[in-house]
Amino acid sequence: MIEDKNPQRTSISQLGEFGLIDHLTKNFAITQASTLKGIGDDAAVLDFKDKKVVVSTDMLVEGVHFDLAYMPLKHLGYKAVVSNVSDICAMNAKATQITVSIAVSNRFPLEALEELFEGITLAANEYKVDVVGGDTTSSQKGLIISITAIGEADEAELTYRNGAKSNDLLVVTGDIGAAYMGLQVLEREKQVFLVNPNSQPDLDAYTYLIERQLKPEARKDVRTLLHALEIKPTSMIDISDGLSSEIIHLCKQSKVGCNLYEDKLPLDPQFINVCEEFDIDSTTVAINGGEDYELLFTIKMEDFDKIKGNPNFSIIGHMTQESEGIHLVTRANTKIALKARGWNPIAE
Amino acid sequence: MIEDKNPQRTSISQLGEFGLIDHLTKNFAITQASTLKGIGDDAAVLDFKDKKVVVSTDMLVEGVHFDLAYMPLKHLGYKAVVSNVSDICAMNAKATQITVSIAVSNRFPLEALEELFEGITLAANEYKVDVVGGDTTSSQKGLIISITAIGEADEAELTYRNGAKSNDLLVVTGDIGAAYMGLQVLEREKQVFLVNPNSQPDLDAYTYLIERQLKPEARKDVRTLLHALEIKPTSMIDISDGLSSEIIHLCKQSKVGCNLYEDKLPLDPQFINVCEEFDIDSTTVAINGGEDYELLFTIKMEDFDKIKGNPNFSIIGHMTQESEGIHLVTRANTKIALKARGWNPIAE
Repeated sequence: MIEDKNPQRTSISQLGEFGLIDHLTKNFAITQASTLKGIGDDAAVLDFKDKKVVVSTDMLVEGVHFDLAYMPLKHLGYKAVVSNVSDICAMNAKATQITVSIAVSNRFPLEALEELFEGITLAANEYKVDVVGGDTTSSQKGLIISITAIGEADEAELTYRNGAKSNDLLVVTGDIGAAYMGLQVLEREKQVFLVNPNSQPDLDAYTYLIERQLKPEARKDVRTLLHALEIKPTSMIDISDGLSSEIIHLCKQSKVGCNLYEDKLPLDPQFINVCEEFDIDSTTVAINGGEDYELLFTIKMEDFDKIKGNPNFSIIGHMTQESEGIHLVTRANTKIALKARGWNPIAE
Repeated sequence: MIEDKNPQRTSISQLGEFGLIDHLTKNFAITQASTLKGIGDDAAVLDFKDKKVVVSTDMLVEGVHFDLAYMPLKHLGYKAVVSNVSDICAMNAKATQITVSIAVSNRFPLEALEELFEGITLAANEYKVDVVGGDTTSSQKGLIISITAIGEADEAELTYRNGAKSNDLLVVTGDIGAAYMGLQVLEREKQVFLVNPNSQPDLDAYTYLIERQLKPEARKDVRTLLHALEIKPTSMIDISDGLSSEIIHLCKQSKVGCNLYEDKLPLDPQFINVCEEFDIDSTTVAINGGEDYELLFTIKMEDFDKIKGNPNFSIIGHMTQESEGIHLVTRANTKIALKARGWNPIAE
């Protein structure tokens, strides 16, 4: 998706490792007060004073997590940052710094890496995280991106996976399933393109889904929203691996059960239309799809009035005693045991 | 180098991502007081109170940074941790936590990953760093390891690359070049083995070199040693990319020149013998070899008496005005401009 038909191609090896790092990182500005020293020494130096430090890491592999046939490099760089920032948000913390390590095969020219770093820079600016370190090296095949995000929080606001209690309400932000269906649309277009490279895709009916897949955003606003509502979640988790597997994680770590209500799942109208077009069950996609960088959290029953009707949040269920198990309650009011069928990058 | 002729091979995909992470990380103990929460949530939580936080990251790629033909997986895991801890040591800081991300192709059975994690665990115990996070995923080809190390230091003890002054003494720890020659010995044995798989290598004459290549150690002792000698280095850097390129980094960032003396380079007798055997100039290897996880630092001239004769340290040169340039002074007392020919993982 590098649109220029006559792109300039500069071999990465011409620059050497240090030259390449200097070139790619020169646009990273330091904006966080906690960043004492960014890129350019053996390590970055951070200063969090009396705050707690939060750290998360993710690795993205070409052919496993993304396909460059429809994922522009700039979007990939943006999404790689978002997926890490989302993990920090899921601690109810504020992302402050990231490190970025890249391995690329020599089929990538410098201009491709520049695009990737443009996306990283855009996300770093949007989420106000300082890029404070990294590594750039060769791969035998494809592109691999490893990002570590660092954040800060007061001890009192930190939210773990193990704090949910029986009778707590289960809440999800935004809507779910759209990123997965965006991927299905892009996969279909790729197949059409392979058969007829001159076909002009008409993607107007899918813009929201494609945006959810190619340019997701992390819910950095949730911390502020909850703070304003005077709600402290009892537990919280990022659902980018799929709602069902993350509900199971929350329940196991909190030693509780859960009833999830099918009719409460927040689905975008475009998502519902496209599920019908693809003849796929929308509930199955919504609970198993993954890549929705939304947050799942539990709140005390007495906080119900503070959150009801808020367009940012949907109450989708409630926690139960552990012995009651983890169930989806269908529209027909039957209870089905919830299984983790979230995305599995290890499966063959 | 998995020696068992009838190894058990368990497919990684049987476990799934979460099962695999649980299985591989169950031996990681938390020993650092600053680790509030380790593996098992969206992010780890760290608490450094009034200390400064130091962060460094490195990516290792099969076929680029290591060859599994002679690098046992356990050693690889150990070395991957060491190389990151070394960067923290080079800040004159103490490593406290690491995150470990791994991508593997499905040719690796579970037992191979267990070996890798055994090495990681061994190093984590040796260096007293807590493994607080990570990611495990598939690769299209080979094994990729990305480690981020976190450390702590008082602001006053932190040592950067940009603090060297003209007339400062240039000091290196340990000896240099041995890791590179260890690699040459292993490469030669691999070629012999490819021709005759029944050959029994006699590596007695090379034990030190091979150990430096396969099981290097980070100089966590240097911080304590310097503290005891009441020396605060003016600048410091890790030389795993090669002495010459790191001297140039120090000089550029500190805006000074340098005279490095060939006859002061600390070389192990085994290293000198093997350079003769391979008919390679020992000075060239010593200053360009890389993978010696030693530290290079500068001290004020008046600290000379505190450090002279100390077996841990060799004074190998002194800093000059920037305009005088960066030179190697040979045994014949001629001055040669120092060039960075450190290892370049980006070159084709």
